[in-house]
Amino acid sequence: MKENTNTASIIALITDFGDKDFYVGAMRGVILSINPNAKIVDISHNIEPFSVISGAYVLYGAYKYFPRGTTFLIVVDPGVGSRREAIVIKTRNYSFVAPNNGVLSLVLMEESITEKYLIPENIFVRKPSYTFHGRDIFAPAAAYASMGVYDVFEEFRGDIVTLDILKYKKEGRAIKAHVINVDRFGNVALSVQYEDVKKEISYGKTVSIKGIGDVKLVRYFSELSVGETGLIVNSIGFLEICIREGNAAKRYGLKLGDEVLLTW
Amino acid sequence: MKENTNTASIIALITDFGDKDFYVGAMRGVILSINPNAKIVDISHNIEPFSVISGAYVLYGAYKYFPRGTTFLIVVDPGVGSRREAIVIKTRNYSFVAPNNGVLSLVLMEESITEKYLIPENIFVRKPSYTFHGRDIFAPAAAYASMGVYDVFEEFRGDIVTLDILKYKKEGRAIKAHVINVDRFGNVALSVQYEDVKKEISYGKTVSIKGIGDVKLVRYFSELSVGETGLIVNSIGFLEICIREGNAAKRYGLKLGDEVLLTW
Amino acid sequence: MKENTNTASIIALITDFGDKDFYVGAMRGVILSINPNAKIVDISHNIEPFSVISGAYVLYGAYKYFPRGTTFLIVVDPGVGSRREAIVIKTRNYSFVAPNNGVLSLVLMEESITEKYLIPENIFVRKPSYTFHGRDIFAPAAAYASMGVYDVFEEFRGDIVTLDILKYKKEGRAIKAHVINVDRFGNVALSVQYEDVKKEISYGKTVSIKGIGDVKLVRYFSELSVGETGLIVNSIGFLEICIREGNAAKRYGLKLGDEVLLTW
Repeated sequence: MKENTNTASIIALITDFGDKDFYVGAMRGVILSINPNAKIVDISHNIEPFSVISGAYVLYGAYKYFPRGTTFLIVVDPGVGSRREAIVIKTRNYSFVAPNNGVLSLVLMEESITEKYLIPENIFVRKPSYTFHGRDIFAPAAAYASMGVYDVFEEFRGDIVTLDILKYKKEGRAIKAHVINVDRFGNVALSVQYEDVKKEISYGKTVSIKGIGDVKLVRYFSELSVGETGLIVNSIGFLEICIREGNAAKRYGLKLGDEVLLTW
Repeated sequence: MKENTNTASIIALITDFGDKDFYVGAMRGVILSINPNAKIVDISHNIEPFSVISGAYVLYGAYKYFPRGTTFLIVVDPGVGSRREAIVIKTRNYSFVAPNNGVLSLVLMEESITEKYLIPENIFVRKPSYTFHGRDIFAPAAAYASMGVYDVFEEFRGDIVTLDILKYKKEGRAIKAHVINVDRFGNVALSVQYEDVKKEISYGKTVSIKGIGDVKLVRYFSELSVGETGLIVNSIGFLEICIREGNAAKRYGLKLGDEVLLTW
Repeated sequence: MKENTNTASIIALITDFGDKDFYVGAMRGVILSINPNAKIVDISHNIEPFSVISGAYVLYGAYKYFPRGTTFLIVVDPGVGSRREAIVIKTRNYSFVAPNNGVLSLVLMEESITEKYLIPENIFVRKPSYTFHGRDIFAPAAAYASMGVYDVFEEFRGDIVTLDILKYKKEGRAIKAHVINVDRFGNVALSVQYEDVKKEISYGKTVSIKGIGDVKLVRYFSELSVGETGLIVNSIGFLEICIREGNAAKRYGLKLGDEVLLTW
C-alpha cells in the first residue's frame, strides 16, 4: 500500500444520517485519521432517511460543480448489513464511494466509468459494525480513494445498479411523471427534464396538472404573483412545481415518489 | 484578471437554503473550483426562508468575531430573478457579497464602506440559472473577492438598501418594538438595544410586556427559576424575552415581525 | 504566553446551539481569530437543548475515531451564568474543553486524565456575555488548547462531575434501564452495553420489553422484516430498540430518560 499523505484532496459527503447524532462526526474522524489532509466538504446529511432516489438527486445536483479529482462519499444505505456491495467508481473526473443500490444512477448518465472497485468489509476494522458501514467501510474507503490509494480495494466485475427514477411516459398530449425531489421551500421536482419536452412545453405555455389545475411554465419566480402556483425549469434542468414565496409540496400534499399527470 | 490562488482566506456563508438539498453543496463546489484555497466556514443555512431580517440579524451576530479579511457570502434572496442588484461591499475589515435587499443593514451601522461593486450576471456562466443565483453569481463572486480579484466586478453607483428593523418607538413610559429574531431555544430578540434604553430599563427593573405580564430584566438565566419568564440582554446587546430552560416564542406565540409593547 | 500559530490541529465541536442562529458561526469566528490554522470539524450542533446526557452520548460515540491530538469543544451548558466551572481536561490522546456538568462522564470511563485546568472567565474578553460563554470562554479556550497554549488556564483542583447515565439494575431475569439516546431514525439506545449482559441476552434470544412486547436481539437490520421491531447492538455497543426502516421512538412514544424494563 503506497500512501501519499500530502494529498489535500476534497471529500464531499452525502448521507441520510442527519445532524443530531454522532454518525457523521465519527465518519469525519475516521477520514481525518487516515488522510489528515482531506478537505471534508458537506453536500447534505439530511437526505430523507433511506431514500436512495433523494440521494441520487442531490448528488446529481451538486457533483459537477466540484473540482476535478473530488471524491464523493454517499451513504444512503437502507440495505446496510445485507449483501449489497460497497463500491468505488472512478470516472475521468471524479471518484464515487457508495453502496451499489442505485444512488449513482443519475451521475452515471453523464459520467463514464473508467474503473470499478469492490470495497472489502475489513478495510479498516477487522470486524465492522453490523449497522454502521458508513464509519467502518465507506469512510475509510473514501479516505484511501482521496489519497489515490486503490490497491486496498478489489476489482469489481458486477453490474452497477441503476434506478428508473428519470422515467416518464408521454402519451399524446399527456405526460405521466413522478416526484423526485421536494426541496426546503416545498418546490416539487418532477422526473422530466425541460430539454426532453421543450417542443411540447415551452416557456409561457399553460399546462394542466391533475389535482392542481392550470399553471404556466415561467422562467423566473418573479413572473408569478406572490402565492401563485407555476411550473419552472429548476437550476439543474428538471420541471418543478413551485409557488412564489410559498410551499407547493405542502399546499398540494405532494411527496417523494408521487405520480404527477401533466396535460396540455 | 490577476489571480492569487495561494490566498487561504475565509469565506463565511449565510443562506436560507437549508441543509437537505444540493444548493449549498453546489455553492461550495463552485467556490473551491475557483479558489481551491478558500476556507469555507458556515454561519447558518437555516435562515427562515425569504427572511432578509433574519439574515441581517444572524450576520450581525457573527461577523465581528471573524478574522480581518474574511469574505461574507449572504444569500437570502426572495427577489432572485427580479431586478435587485447583486453587490460586493468592501469595508476596512471585511468584504460582503449579497443581494442589495437590506440584508447588510445592521452590519453597515457599524462598518464603513470603502468600495462598492456590482456583480455582472455572467461572472461565472454565460447564462446563469433563473432561480439559483447563489451558485451562478454570488458564490463565484465571493470566490473572486476572497482572492482579492475585484476587476471582474463593475463599479456600483447606486444606493445600498437598508431596512428599518432596528426601529422602536418610545412614548412616555412605553416602547413599541418588534420581534427581530427567534432562536433555537425560543428566545425572542426585540428591536431595542439595551444601550439605548438603559436609563429607563436597568438590570433588576420590572417591565410589563403586553400579553405576557410583568417580567424582570436579569443578567443571567440562572436569576430566573426554571420555567420563569424574564427579559435579558442577549449576547449581542438586544433585549430578549426568555424563559429559563423553556421556549418563550412557543409559550407566547411570538414570531418574526410581531409587535411587542413594553411599559414600565 | 507562547503561541504556535502553525499548529494545524483539529477542533471538534459539539453544541446544542442548533443551526439557525449566529451562535456556532460566532464561535467559529473566534476560534479562527485566535488560531488561524485550526481545522474546525463538526460533530453535532443539534444536541437536544440543555441535554447533558445527550451531549455525553454523542461525544462518546464520535471521539475515539478522531486523530490523536484532537481538541474537543463541548458546549451543552444549561448552567451558563451560574457557578459551574469551565474546564479543560487533558488525557493521553485528547483535550476536552467543556462545562463541568457531567458531559464528559462517558468519555472519562475510557480515557485517563493527565491534566486538569480551570478556564478563567476573562480569557478572551474582559467582560464575557452573561449568556454566551460558548463564544466568550469555551471557544477561545479550545483555540488556545489546540495550539498547545495551556498557560492561559489555571490549575483545577476540584472534582469532575459525572452522571449516572449508564446505570441499569438487574434483578433476576429483568433489567431496568433507561433511554439515553434517540437518533434520527428513531432508534432508541438503552443504558445497557451488550458486553455486560451477553451471558443473559445473546444474539437470537427473545426478550420482552414492557409496553412493546417480545423482540429478538439481532445482528443486522436485515434480519428483521420491514416494519418489525427488534433489539440490536448499536455501533458503539449499546442495546438499541429499532424498527427496520421505521421509527421506534415514535411508534412507542419513547424519549430521552424514559425507563425501559426488559425481561427474559
